[in-house]
Amino acid sequence: MISNNILKVLGETIKQRRTTLKISQEKYAELCNVHRTYISQIERGLKNVSVKVLFSLAENLNTTPSELIKEVEQQLESKKE
Amino acid sequence: MISNNILKVLGETIKQRRTTLKISQEKYAELCNVHRTYISQIERGLKNVSVKVLFSLAENLNTTPSELIKEVEQQLESKKE
Repeated sequence: MISNNILKVLGETIKQRRTTLKISQEKYAELCNVHRTYISQIERGLKNVSVKVLFSLAENLNTTPSELIKEVEQQLESKKE
Repeated sequence: MISNNILKVLGETIKQRRTTLKISQEKYAELCNVHRTYISQIERGLKNVSVKVLFSLAENLNTTPSELIKEVEQQLESKKE
């Protein structure tokens, strides 16, 4: 089911962007004002992130929330094929 | 603060699209598989919607979550000016 993949793909997308930017989970958590374990859970698709957190997650990866979500949509679309 | 406006603007954007499509709150709630009062709270900006719910909210307004969030970003940007 697509909805079960949303969080997994979102987590992977965030992790990929974060590692590309060479930001540690610790630093990223600090920037987003959340706990490091929360970032770890998000990246593993274990947290159903809220819109407010999404805005903060995107901002601290130098992107917009709509761009981040668009990447997730594209990933989900490609997995369907 | 921008983050306090996110939910308000998201709610307004959803309400506007829903009314344009002439879908009642009851019908929309049914389509999204949530309670009508939850839709009412979302539209008033009282709920910090999760990503999974966001995908469902967008789908049932014939749009994508990234488009919905993009509208929110544009609204927030225009309010800043």
